[in-house]
Amino acid sequence: MKRHLSTAPLSVTRPQVRAYIDRLEPYLRQKLIPFWLERVVDPECGGFWTYVDRNGNRTAKTDKTLICQLRNIFTMSSIHRAGLDDGRALAAARQGVRFTIEHFWDREYGGWYWIADRSGKVTDDNKIMYGQSFGVYGMAEYMLATGDPVGREYAEKTFDTIHRCAADIRGGGYWEMFHRDWTLKEGGVFGGDRKTLDVHMHLMEAYTTLYEMSRLPAHRRKLIEIMRLLTSRMCHPEFGTGMAQFDEDFHPLPAILFRNVWGADRDTETGKRPLNNTNYGHNVEMCWLLMRAVDLLGEEPQPWLPVIRKMDDQALQWGVDWEYGGVYVEGPNDGPTTQTVKEFWQQAEVLVGFLDAALIFRQQKYWDAFTNVCDFVWNRMINHEVGEWYALLERDGTIKWDHLGHEWKCGYHTVRAIIQSLKRLRALADLVEPR
Amino acid sequence: MKRHLSTAPLSVTRPQVRAYIDRLEPYLRQKLIPFWLERVVDPECGGFWTYVDRNGNRTAKTDKTLICQLRNIFTMSSIHRAGLDDGRALAAARQGVRFTIEHFWDREYGGWYWIADRSGKVTDDNKIMYGQSFGVYGMAEYMLATGDPVGREYAEKTFDTIHRCAADIRGGGYWEMFHRDWTLKEGGVFGGDRKTLDVHMHLMEAYTTLYEMSRLPAHRRKLIEIMRLLTSRMCHPEFGTGMAQFDEDFHPLPAILFRNVWGADRDTETGKRPLNNTNYGHNVEMCWLLMRAVDLLGEEPQPWLPVIRKMDDQALQWGVDWEYGGVYVEGPNDGPTTQTVKEFWQQAEVLVGFLDAALIFRQQKYWDAFTNVCDFVWNRMINHEVGEWYALLERDGTIKWDHLGHEWKCGYHTVRAIIQSLKRLRALADLVEPR
Repeated sequence: MKRHLSTAPLSVTRPQVRAYIDRLEPYLRQKLIPFWLERVVDPECGGFWTYVDRNGNRTAKTDKTLICQLRNIFTMSSIHRAGLDDGRALAAARQGVRFTIEHFWDREYGGWYWIADRSGKVTDDNKIMYGQSFGVYGMAEYMLATGDPVGREYAEKTFDTIHRCAADIRGGGYWEMFHRDWTLKEGGVFGGDRKTLDVHMHLMEAYTTLYEMSRLPAHRRKLIEIMRLLTSRMCHPEFGTGMAQFDEDFHPLPAILFRNVWGADRDTETGKRPLNNTNYGHNVEMCWLLMRAVDLLGEEPQPWLPVIRKMDDQALQWGVDWEYGGVYVEGPNDGPTTQTVKEFWQQAEVLVGFLDAALIFRQQKYWDAFTNVCDFVWNRMINHEVGEWYALLERDGTIKWDHLGHEWKCGYHTVRAIIQSLKRLRALADLVEPR
Repeated sequence: MKRHLSTAPLSVTRPQVRAYIDRLEPYLRQKLIPFWLERVVDPECGGFWTYVDRNGNRTAKTDKTLICQLRNIFTMSSIHRAGLDDGRALAAARQGVRFTIEHFWDREYGGWYWIADRSGKVTDDNKIMYGQSFGVYGMAEYMLATGDPVGREYAEKTFDTIHRCAADIRGGGYWEMFHRDWTLKEGGVFGGDRKTLDVHMHLMEAYTTLYEMSRLPAHRRKLIEIMRLLTSRMCHPEFGTGMAQFDEDFHPLPAILFRNVWGADRDTETGKRPLNNTNYGHNVEMCWLLMRAVDLLGEEPQPWLPVIRKMDDQALQWGVDWEYGGVYVEGPNDGPTTQTVKEFWQQAEVLVGFLDAALIFRQQKYWDAFTNVCDFVWNRMINHEVGEWYALLERDGTIKWDHLGHEWKCGYHTVRAIIQSLKRLRALADLVEPR
């Protein structure tokens, strides 16, 4: 059956929706959030612990990555904002903000260093835009959660640094990989000559929360500019899906693996990805983040729906594993996947994205996709003893990477996904007919 | 004779070059600089006086425009840097910096207000990019002249504000006309929906001095980006000359008159300029500013010479009035001028630009163009009694606008032109054969 072509209207019942709420809410409150509250703060040095094994125990690796510090600031703040905090999330966020500003903010050149040792001594002083983006996102969320002006100060300092140092006012968009003093890195695998969908999507994510915090015209304008840039220059002209990498003028390039990105150690293929290749979870993530921006801006949604629809439908057609459950990694736009493993963050993002699609388009297929992935995560990915999700599974759910915390895995995707899914599930429950 | 096609090599003699040095240097030291030192500082309120009549007397109009404050900060600082100061230029610059920061810098939204009354009370709080550009240029020059860290602080604050608020990271370049809070102005004559060569050229000018001051990689990169943007997207694809106005994607538009620009009160034509239209003095100004940036960056000049050559030659062919002397305002790329009046700033800029061309291309025609315009200025435009130049003359040199100081006329063009011309004349004198 060509499920992705189905136009069958949403026919889920309120009890069916409530069943997911009743499963996920206790899980969030009693398992997932406590998982992180109990172990994410470094009790001796401050900041956030990065590495956690399959049983939830901290490992011997003690590096503190910028990504984990800032994402945890975001996550702890968001837990507090969502009213799910017993006080520990707020305290964790506060101490994390102090630690990160003290050790990771470069007072001379601006921006955030990339990696420090456990005590906070910097070991990698590069300026990576992927991280700077979370400086805006995490600090703005912290400000919104707490009213602490330090959050605003550093969200705005980061935004200003990004524009002073990384914005390409000739070609548009941003450069992404720099040395400490904001000299561009070399090209090729060092990333100094490419622009990526990944970074630009995260900037859209960040600017949305920044604007939510500040309501400044300048922030609003940059948010709309990046939304337009993403959808008009970084999506495939025919398929409408995200393309991964570009040259300075946004000509798409076969994607290569850079240093410093997740999955780099998993990739057994040498060389480049084909141009006809797209990442399902990333696309669906972009869709819900775009919709969130549209809502926050108070913009008319209609012009944005075609691009959102295309990406959601492509993921539904080729990305969802209707046999084993969950979503694959990536593949051609118009054919089956080339990577059947199941990444934790993709499952997380499509939960939110498919629920968003169900709410926007009111079609049953999006609900079916949501339940498919949610059941897969519940049955195969979550370590229910301790509460977090394994990082990577084989197609059939066999555990492949069993760590629960890693430099590219903290509570950001998982906690956000459950919080955001529950919001949408409640909205859906209110919409559908009781039976 | 098709002078513009001549390839006759430079054959000027050292005495001939020295004759111009011997005329201009005393004029600069004894007439032009003192003209401003004696009357530009407001002795009661501080800051810089804006309006001066044909005899050098201050008029009853006492508004202080941002442009005049910042340009005078630049001019006074440049006089000091050039070793032509008796101490008054430094003092004038310092008090100007204090006044302008105190009254014109917006501590809440960032950037500079547009107009104040004599005491410094703001009467127009719009944020106009043309002015912000001079914030970078003037404050950086002040820092270079004096070492006063306040200069660096405000040059960098302005640069950061420009990027936070005005950079278009989707379409490239910058938006130009804003309300106080950086909301874009309306379109049409309010300029909110256009990008102009004028502003982007002045940004290149400003970033050059900023980089000279800071030597920061981030500033260097923006400078190269704007040089590439100007030459690749804002110059005519066939004629290579500057085009005036563009939409958000740099599609050229028939130019319209905005509020807030010089010449707006002179323009008797309603409606738009044709697309096939270019401004001689502006092009030649862009050429020498571009060359200055190339030199400062230590870049290889060769790739930039074709675009410089095209603009200089087009001005030489159609812009220079070989009969009466001086340069006209503007006209089609490939035909005679449509405006035979002689604007002061265009004469000033082509002096420097034609000397630059003589040095770069070593051809006699550029020297002839320089002497043509220099003689015209000397004989017709300068009020030798007091030292400054009339604002606007008819083709034959009859005075049309006789004010010597105005919101769009201070010492910036004239003093800079003579200082920069003398630098090039001395270099030329060292190069040519004595006879």
